[in-house]
Amino acid sequence: MRPVRVGIVGYGTVGQATARIIASHAQDAHQRSDVLLNVTKVCRRTPVTSADLPQGAQLVTDWRQVVHAQDVDVVVETIGGTTVAGEVVRASLESGKPVVTANKNLIAESGEKLFALAAQKNLPIGMEATVAGGIPILRVLSESMSGDRVQAVYGILNGTANYILTQMETTGAGFEKALTEAQKAGYAEADPTFDIDGIDARDKLCILARLAFNARVSPTDIATIGIRQVSDVDIHYARRLHSKIRLVAMAERNYDGLDLSVRPWLVEDHSMLAKVEGVNNAVFLQGEKVGTQMFLGRGAGGDPTGAAVVSDLVEIARNMVAGRVAAKALSGFTNWNNATLHPGRRAVSWYLRLTVTDRPGIIARVAEVLAEKEINIDSVFQEPHMSKERLSFVITVEPVLKATIQAAVKLINQFDFMKEPVLLLRIDNSSESV
Amino acid sequence: MRPVRVGIVGYGTVGQATARIIASHAQDAHQRSDVLLNVTKVCRRTPVTSADLPQGAQLVTDWRQVVHAQDVDVVVETIGGTTVAGEVVRASLESGKPVVTANKNLIAESGEKLFALAAQKNLPIGMEATVAGGIPILRVLSESMSGDRVQAVYGILNGTANYILTQMETTGAGFEKALTEAQKAGYAEADPTFDIDGIDARDKLCILARLAFNARVSPTDIATIGIRQVSDVDIHYARRLHSKIRLVAMAERNYDGLDLSVRPWLVEDHSMLAKVEGVNNAVFLQGEKVGTQMFLGRGAGGDPTGAAVVSDLVEIARNMVAGRVAAKALSGFTNWNNATLHPGRRAVSWYLRLTVTDRPGIIARVAEVLAEKEINIDSVFQEPHMSKERLSFVITVEPVLKATIQAAVKLINQFDFMKEPVLLLRIDNSSESV
Repeated sequence: MRPVRVGIVGYGTVGQATARIIASHAQDAHQRSDVLLNVTKVCRRTPVTSADLPQGAQLVTDWRQVVHAQDVDVVVETIGGTTVAGEVVRASLESGKPVVTANKNLIAESGEKLFALAAQKNLPIGMEATVAGGIPILRVLSESMSGDRVQAVYGILNGTANYILTQMETTGAGFEKALTEAQKAGYAEADPTFDIDGIDARDKLCILARLAFNARVSPTDIATIGIRQVSDVDIHYARRLHSKIRLVAMAERNYDGLDLSVRPWLVEDHSMLAKVEGVNNAVFLQGEKVGTQMFLGRGAGGDPTGAAVVSDLVEIARNMVAGRVAAKALSGFTNWNNATLHPGRRAVSWYLRLTVTDRPGIIARVAEVLAEKEINIDSVFQEPHMSKERLSFVITVEPVLKATIQAAVKLINQFDFMKEPVLLLRIDNSSESV
Repeated sequence: MRPVRVGIVGYGTVGQATARIIASHAQDAHQRSDVLLNVTKVCRRTPVTSADLPQGAQLVTDWRQVVHAQDVDVVVETIGGTTVAGEVVRASLESGKPVVTANKNLIAESGEKLFALAAQKNLPIGMEATVAGGIPILRVLSESMSGDRVQAVYGILNGTANYILTQMETTGAGFEKALTEAQKAGYAEADPTFDIDGIDARDKLCILARLAFNARVSPTDIATIGIRQVSDVDIHYARRLHSKIRLVAMAERNYDGLDLSVRPWLVEDHSMLAKVEGVNNAVFLQGEKVGTQMFLGRGAGGDPTGAAVVSDLVEIARNMVAGRVAAKALSGFTNWNNATLHPGRRAVSWYLRLTVTDRPGIIARVAEVLAEKEINIDSVFQEPHMSKERLSFVITVEPVLKATIQAAVKLINQFDFMKEPVLLLRIDNSSESV
């Protein structure tokens, strides 16, 4: 049997893991799926020691030498970024080669165009690795949910942010300290913006929402708030509320449209969202018929991501050997609806943390604003012995629409006693009945 | 576009749910997958009110009228049992029709022969609905894990047993009472043997193990113990140990062989296994590269199971329309290894509950037996004020092989003070790091 020859562009953590898995699992893949994968070309601009190169593979420094190589049947794009990566994917498709990518930014930003090109060329783009590492959530959405209608897909899609929040919970560290530790542990990058500001989660949600709802969604449609403003004070108040703080990305069917957001939630201790700790990812899928399902696992790292890349490669190889296109990778990406966005059409409870210069009458002023907007206060927490100069207290309110609470927050932020803007967390007290 | 015509044999809960989902989701399936499904024939021996029949479908009473019908392209077998169901599946394949089945007993018992026939006929058998209801675990195992090597697959595969255990925990009811309540609530059948004796979980594990390890596994290879012997006393002692009792089915790679078992486990409160409550199912998948993943959701019921049937139908229909066989449904089922079984080759901790007629020296006698087998006692619990006539106490021991603890239990069971055989629970204190 002729092996399917793989070229890898971008030979960092994921690219190398992919090559290692192909080498170590060749036998299994052959037996299970009747395909042989073989890495023939690797592109990386900086030197690679020969021990890190797959046996028999040629190292090149220009990606065109992979994409246009005679001995490459499928291209793996693990270069990252969107500029060169986009060129690599386009050029591969143009030269008749299927592509597998782990690049969520690229797919979120340019997925529609790339999939249109792929459809035109009748070629698949594998992208299982773009969301939630080894958790095969894209395959589940595109294939297994074909017997159901998705109501919502949501979850914890960024392991770095979740690691930081979990560290703050367990060590009592503040945000900055937890971030530094995550960087030391290799869980956060030197520039952590993508992870902690929710951009990475947003891009993943964008991909999930397209598949779940067949909807034309772009990353900028998604209101995105990260965890930068979450402080040790919030972790403390969360504990008093028997809750934890989680960065949740959610896409929900809402009347005739979609509600999309990435923001920190306050989730009850006994909820499944609260159980997701450290660098794990969890995706919740609410189907009309199947009810709520949860998929939990490692969301990043070379090995899980590499395994997802290889699962796409095996599927593509299997189809190439049989002389057909991988239908799955194309379907659901060429037949989009225009999404109507209805952000926040469902009333939910909220957590407001205010940090103020203390003086008499503050709670009265805040309560007045809330009353004016017809928002009912559910509870107020203020710890004793806080500095008058920087006093933090928390108000939780009964369910209202996002627009309503945001209008109130806007007014509250204008008070001169406010030391920083209100931190607003969505409270999930649905105790999702998985 | 010509619709793919579906015939349903056995029109009970799952059959009807399948027909309802096909009707209600026709539009979505069409848009997402470019296929149209249409139920043309329904077979059921007892009368059906016309409101429960799919529009335009013909009701017949002999399954041959479905299998041999000109206007049926795919057969759904939801009749249950293994005799007639087996005939239906074979006859369908013989007449060139793909089959979708929800019948775990049939696939566990006769899967090898049926898949050999399917391979010979170049036809798919869809069986996603046989394990864990709407959780798409078979697709995950057969496709998404193609980039990895499975180390273990285990979990809670029977919702009825889990419901009974959860009820015992929350209401304090004994086993018999909880079973009666489960029957009243419609979660347990009049004859609950399959569920509470672990047979249903065993059949599902058999199917999982074949797919996970490409291994020739038969249901009788799996040592199976149900929950009949678990009493309110055990629930009580479990609570003292900050644990819960769960019926766990496990298939684990073990040296060069497999370890397969269904038995009640004692799992720590904070473990993910303990969080699985009520009729839910959870499957844990340990991959060499992806780490441990958990899939949680409703494991039974018409709608989730019907949705799984429809997901298979959509896949088969999509492939029929494109004029090709659904490769997946065949792969991994025609290329089996002979499994070497190594039951219990890993030392684990155990919980022993003894129920005795009290008299002095009992613990000493039991401790002697354990010492003789070189088993270290970890803890002993005996509640005060129990009846002397029927006194239950618990011993937990440090990790030993199953054979060792079983040998000790055999000796202990021979003591004349024993009122009933020792209840032996495997203790999971690995705190599986999902």
